[in-house]
Amino acid sequence: METQVVIIGGGPSGLLLGQLLHRAGVETLILERRSREHVLSRIRAGVLERGTVALLDEVGVGARCREEGIRHAGTLIGWGDESFRLSFREATGHAVTVYGQTEVTRDLYEARDAAGAPVLHGVDDVVIEGADTDAPSVSFRHEARPRRVRCAFVAGCDGFHGVSRRTIPEGRRTEHEKVYPFGWLGILSETPPVHDELIYSGSEKGFALCSMRSTGLSRYYVQCGAEEDPAAWSDDAFWDALRRRLPPEHAEALVTGPSVEKSVAPLRSFVCEPMRWGRLFLVGDAAHIVPPTGAKGLNLAASDVHYLSRALIDHFGGDDGAIDAYSNRALARVWKAVRFSWWFTSLLHRYPDQSAFDRRMQRAEFAFLKESASARAAMAENYVGLPL
Amino acid sequence: METQVVIIGGGPSGLLLGQLLHRAGVETLILERRSREHVLSRIRAGVLERGTVALLDEVGVGARCREEGIRHAGTLIGWGDESFRLSFREATGHAVTVYGQTEVTRDLYEARDAAGAPVLHGVDDVVIEGADTDAPSVSFRHEARPRRVRCAFVAGCDGFHGVSRRTIPEGRRTEHEKVYPFGWLGILSETPPVHDELIYSGSEKGFALCSMRSTGLSRYYVQCGAEEDPAAWSDDAFWDALRRRLPPEHAEALVTGPSVEKSVAPLRSFVCEPMRWGRLFLVGDAAHIVPPTGAKGLNLAASDVHYLSRALIDHFGGDDGAIDAYSNRALARVWKAVRFSWWFTSLLHRYPDQSAFDRRMQRAEFAFLKESASARAAMAENYVGLPL
Repeated sequence: METQVVIIGGGPSGLLLGQLLHRAGVETLILERRSREHVLSRIRAGVLERGTVALLDEVGVGARCREEGIRHAGTLIGWGDESFRLSFREATGHAVTVYGQTEVTRDLYEARDAAGAPVLHGVDDVVIEGADTDAPSVSFRHEARPRRVRCAFVAGCDGFHGVSRRTIPEGRRTEHEKVYPFGWLGILSETPPVHDELIYSGSEKGFALCSMRSTGLSRYYVQCGAEEDPAAWSDDAFWDALRRRLPPEHAEALVTGPSVEKSVAPLRSFVCEPMRWGRLFLVGDAAHIVPPTGAKGLNLAASDVHYLSRALIDHFGGDDGAIDAYSNRALARVWKAVRFSWWFTSLLHRYPDQSAFDRRMQRAEFAFLKESASARAAMAENYVGLPL
Repeated sequence: METQVVIIGGGPSGLLLGQLLHRAGVETLILERRSREHVLSRIRAGVLERGTVALLDEVGVGARCREEGIRHAGTLIGWGDESFRLSFREATGHAVTVYGQTEVTRDLYEARDAAGAPVLHGVDDVVIEGADTDAPSVSFRHEARPRRVRCAFVAGCDGFHGVSRRTIPEGRRTEHEKVYPFGWLGILSETPPVHDELIYSGSEKGFALCSMRSTGLSRYYVQCGAEEDPAAWSDDAFWDALRRRLPPEHAEALVTGPSVEKSVAPLRSFVCEPMRWGRLFLVGDAAHIVPPTGAKGLNLAASDVHYLSRALIDHFGGDDGAIDAYSNRALARVWKAVRFSWWFTSLLHRYPDQSAFDRRMQRAEFAFLKESASARAAMAENYVGLPL
């Protein structure tokens, strides 16, 4: 077997990269460990930057997102009894689109099918070989048979636990990590959202986020221990915790109901440098993780895909400049998004070891944001997405 | 003896408060532990916010500051080899004035003399009595004799180590403190400043600040250990350390010479709440300390003086509203300046316990400031002084 680019991972970043390359005439093969059904059952955040929506448009799958997605021109930021609205539109002229990652993935699979481009599911034992040579290949098991595909490049879109990053020898990569001393307990509930925009709220009790999938499906989170068992939380206990962490008017307006999903996610910041080793490129979660505060994960993967697709297309057109610049270019944007996600997390969470002084710094920063149009604009620029 | 307001401390905040009250016909007595010569020999920062200059104008001593002070419409912010100019004027329409605190104090003493208002120097054993009653008094020793003065109010302008704050019973005040794990080694040198604006610079080696008193007198600082002995630093060692922490073009331009003063200052954030106990009011360093990064100390004292002078004048006019609001009003501004000073310190210093991830957050924040006009504007708003 032979192809131009092997893409490891059939989630949204692998699929988006595949479509961008396909439209430029570059042949790709996508290898995915799980079934398509499994990939489509993953529930993930769904706040899309305009740059991400533009990429979906570019590969011809933006229509449903533009039709069914909910445009948000601002968000509510709360601290204790106080809150202010962060207007993205006022500060930046732009908005974000609330549209589930699952839907993005579904749209991209349809486009891949329509293009007749291959995705192998249920692929195991992936090994990337010769990434530091001019003739890399990827071997794997598929349908119980060993296979091997030669290629010009390998794109590692296989997430934090994937094989791609680990293929780079330890001495050739540096990993930066910060593990936060808390997690998020999230539930999905078939209730109307408490507010028509998202609410990010800090409080003495800890952080809470009110989000949504649609007008009848809400997604709520409260800060919890990093290792907590979601089954130990009754729905009532969750709703009580959420109410105590929201500004009073929103706590009162909250409509509760049975949860249809409940899970705990740890919070982590992680960056691997560089994002390239020879002919292997890391994309998205394979290279970096951000805490979900700020909704940067999928959007950061999309900007990596943007840089890498241009670079590969340039290469096949005879120009290697962008290939050589990929890692630095992607990392420059990654670090700023990692900083924003860390800052936004630090602003609103309760840390077990923080001093009374640290708490006051959070309150003072909230007060400054509430009063300063410039500070809010800087925050909004990050939220809607820094320029590519 | 009797007066309307006893002001404890004859530094710039006590003197400024005295002049503001004097011009409104309120009688004051200033008690100062040291001699006038000693007070005037203290070398302190000298970056004045426009609100501070406006207060000097208000008491009729602004002329020399406006004539001899150097207006700075921006400052240089560096990190490693990179730097950007923070334009205060562009972001806020305002500038700051570089004018030594010693000069401010001298101008205020002259005004106090001209007004014939009393300052007692060499005052010892100050005790504030009955601050929580309607008839407070202050007893002390002066010229070897015990004295006692009855008054309506006591203003504690006697700094961090003064008696005023400690007069508030421990159960009636809360103190928030953060001690930084480093200090500043500062020198004064009769050399031309390396740049016509200040340079704040972070680097892998630690922080440096290039400041000035005049076109022929420079004030430079490098981050050092909190407890270091300045005598252990030769001038050459200082200049070497400074050069290694500046952006290359400024390191090259540095003109060195013998130091005329050399000292180490620890860095601390401190806030005491509330800033009032009965008829005793805390002002400036008596209530709060900020690290010198951002030059907020004297300016914060000036804004406290502004609030307190209005409140006392209102009181003698029959209205106690501002007296009752003083502590909350002053603290709201104090906490924001404490946050800014902490943030600016955190951005540029090397911390002994910081991780590689933390260093990257500093670099990413610097990069974001360099690129975002909004982020720079939020920084400039704080530097020139938040609204009163």
